[in-house]
Amino acid sequence: MSLLVAGWVAIDEIETPFERREGSLGGSATCAALAASLFTDVRLLAAVGEDFPDAMRRALERPGIDLAGLQVVPGGKTSRWGGRYHYDMNSRDTLYTVLGVNERWEPELPPGWEHSSSLFLAAGDPVLQQRLMTMVPGARARMVDTIEFFIDGAREELLKAVRQADFVSINDSEARQLAGEPSIARAGRALLNGGTRAVIIKLGEYGAAYISGEDYFVAPGYPLEEVVDPTGAGDAFAGGFMGYLDAVQEVTSAEIRRAIIYGSTVASFCVEGFGPSRLLTLTRDEVEERYRQFRALTHFEVER
Amino acid sequence: MSLLVAGWVAIDEIETPFERREGSLGGSATCAALAASLFTDVRLLAAVGEDFPDAMRRALERPGIDLAGLQVVPGGKTSRWGGRYHYDMNSRDTLYTVLGVNERWEPELPPGWEHSSSLFLAAGDPVLQQRLMTMVPGARARMVDTIEFFIDGAREELLKAVRQADFVSINDSEARQLAGEPSIARAGRALLNGGTRAVIIKLGEYGAAYISGEDYFVAPGYPLEEVVDPTGAGDAFAGGFMGYLDAVQEVTSAEIRRAIIYGSTVASFCVEGFGPSRLLTLTRDEVEERYRQFRALTHFEVER
Repeated sequence: MSLLVAGWVAIDEIETPFERREGSLGGSATCAALAASLFTDVRLLAAVGEDFPDAMRRALERPGIDLAGLQVVPGGKTSRWGGRYHYDMNSRDTLYTVLGVNERWEPELPPGWEHSSSLFLAAGDPVLQQRLMTMVPGARARMVDTIEFFIDGAREELLKAVRQADFVSINDSEARQLAGEPSIARAGRALLNGGTRAVIIKLGEYGAAYISGEDYFVAPGYPLEEVVDPTGAGDAFAGGFMGYLDAVQEVTSAEIRRAIIYGSTVASFCVEGFGPSRLLTLTRDEVEERYRQFRALTHFEVER
Repeated sequence: MSLLVAGWVAIDEIETPFERREGSLGGSATCAALAASLFTDVRLLAAVGEDFPDAMRRALERPGIDLAGLQVVPGGKTSRWGGRYHYDMNSRDTLYTVLGVNERWEPELPPGWEHSSSLFLAAGDPVLQQRLMTMVPGARARMVDTIEFFIDGAREELLKAVRQADFVSINDSEARQLAGEPSIARAGRALLNGGTRAVIIKLGEYGAAYISGEDYFVAPGYPLEEVVDPTGAGDAFAGGFMGYLDAVQEVTSAEIRRAIIYGSTVASFCVEGFGPSRLLTLTRDEVEERYRQFRALTHFEVER
């Protein structure tokens, strides 16, 4: 089994209340690919410019990640994003987004990648997201993620991409914005009524909610005493979710619920370091241990 | 078994983005007593003025609630609170707080109430909260709740009350404020380090976290499509929690976890109506049904 992760690999500038870093490895596909590689074989499809540092490329060179689809655009500039977190780390301002090579990226699949078993379309141009879904027609599970930038700028195309996918992953304020509904449950319901098969609403430190025609699942956040940098947590969640799901025998409601907890678990590690740094050292054993803690933290019985 | 609920019975003026109501039955003890009465016998200890409407008193006259401690202060004015909710219903501004009879209330216990088996001290003067705990020395479980008003105005006395209790119930922004810590987990830990036995941090629509020396439990919120008025939800949570716990044979970690889910369940009903109105029609059967739904919504297995 193999999961194709397509999206941005970028260079970030991040300010938290406690620290400021320039030249941090970022992009929607980066944390997703690293997270997913804990569970399955990952194929990373993204474009960078000639300015993409060797050290960042080496960080992505890992046994579980195939970089044949990491294209260096001649004369191009790597995408850049700058953001500043507020004191509570739950909200942030985007300072700038420089599209660079992602302004007009025409992705080409390396040979054989059209047979990938799953597809994760990290936040990116929704027209490309749609095209990529048709380029991998046999994928068993396809998830689309997005950010405010595309909800504002490409709403109709995004809604098309979302309807084409099996899962959409979106954070709560974006879900309210995309659906035009004030509550999470209503926003999820509105997206389902619009033709989306299943919606995962990411609630940041408060967990996640999953809404489909067949199931409704809510998971609290894993309680962390220290959050270093929330950047990439949503992508790590989605990558962990899709990586776990790619590796299971059959996509059932029970497996989807486990995938959500695995995604939350990997995301909880992601925020413990700056950018993707914690994911670079994370092991599957650490993930399994925290997954079991998650269960212990949330379990209750109906009957005495 | 019997739960003594002490706090405010007040008259509220509430503005949501969709509605504005004056003369709504309110006060920290009101929703708590109504919620608790679904599970156990409740004794309501509070003061109102001569202006307290008969209709409001009749709303509280219920089989499970003993009103012998609802004192009408001669010449006194009932406390009043006004608040306005923001669009997302998760945050609000307090427009005014008029102490009225609660400015100098000297509670007296009706005969026999000193033998109550549990004690819930809804938000109120922390000096009184301390005194009431000494007036009911044999209580098996004692919980203190509070609001920003007392954290700002009576911080040291509040911390004393909190240390004297078995449980403190507090919302997340108040926990951060009281502990001076940015994350929920750290705020909870700081309160434990300061001598509190167990902390319940209420996360509004996102659920609740329970932190003690022996256990850590996180529960997501029950997903609601429509929130009419969040006023009293935190009190309904605390009342449901203490009411359930008063009725159990023994206070164990497993029972505390169930009590948190019962509290969340009752709170999810509370916000479906204006003020305490939904609690006035709520039945134990409805609570049990939603409790089972809660379990179905949150359950996942570690192993396949």
